[in-house]
Amino acid sequence: MEMDPVEANPQNYSVISENDRVRVLEYRDSPGRSTIEHHHPDNVMITASTFRRRLSSNGQSVDVELPSGVARWMSSQDHSGENIGETDTHAFFVELKEPARNQDQVHVGSLGPEEP
Amino acid sequence: MEMDPVEANPQNYSVISENDRVRVLEYRDSPGRSTIEHHHPDNVMITASTFRRRLSSNGQSVDVELPSGVARWMSSQDHSGENIGETDTHAFFVELKEPARNQDQVHVGSLGPEEP
Repeated sequence: MEMDPVEANPQNYSVISENDRVRVLEYRDSPGRSTIEHHHPDNVMITASTFRRRLSSNGQSVDVELPSGVARWMSSQDHSGENIGETDTHAFFVELKEPARNQDQVHVGSLGPEEP
Repeated sequence: MEMDPVEANPQNYSVISENDRVRVLEYRDSPGRSTIEHHHPDNVMITASTFRRRLSSNGQSVDVELPSGVARWMSSQDHSGENIGETDTHAFFVELKEPARNQDQVHVGSLGPEEP
């Protein structure tokens, strides 16, 4: 299943900029809310709030806690998310439309954003 | 002259994330401050404050006024910037390290960020 984030969760994701090379999504939710499983291509997430989330995929889950104002690489992956904190989530995703130039540059995707 | 933004203006730009495909910069300044001319590769700028700036290059200049929370494509370019507003500038730049896959995808660079 490869559901576009915006199609799967139009109440959370919106497209705020797009051209041939990138698409930029804005994400918002509130504590206790969950998303339907969706697919992210390789992207950079930039946080605009402090938040705590549980990301799940194929029976695995990982808890992610991030402050506002940080950037994290996220490799192509399917997941659903749940706001398990006490603050709204607000973040931006800069999706790369082009595949990695070299196979060397393909990051093996772990669930959720990578460590810095 | 192709001066890296961080080398040219270390008091304003810092690298907050980097891998083989992208580098993410954070930018901050205050009213009245200017940058030394520097080079941006193709990138997406995401604003984290409302600001007003004058970007200059080769005797040309353009004034840019943006609210917080927007994303703008910026084609590869050299420029210097001046905060001509009354608010601090805070923004993130997601730089693409890979060249455009097709020549069709090369955007002819206008000075400053593109219109949405």
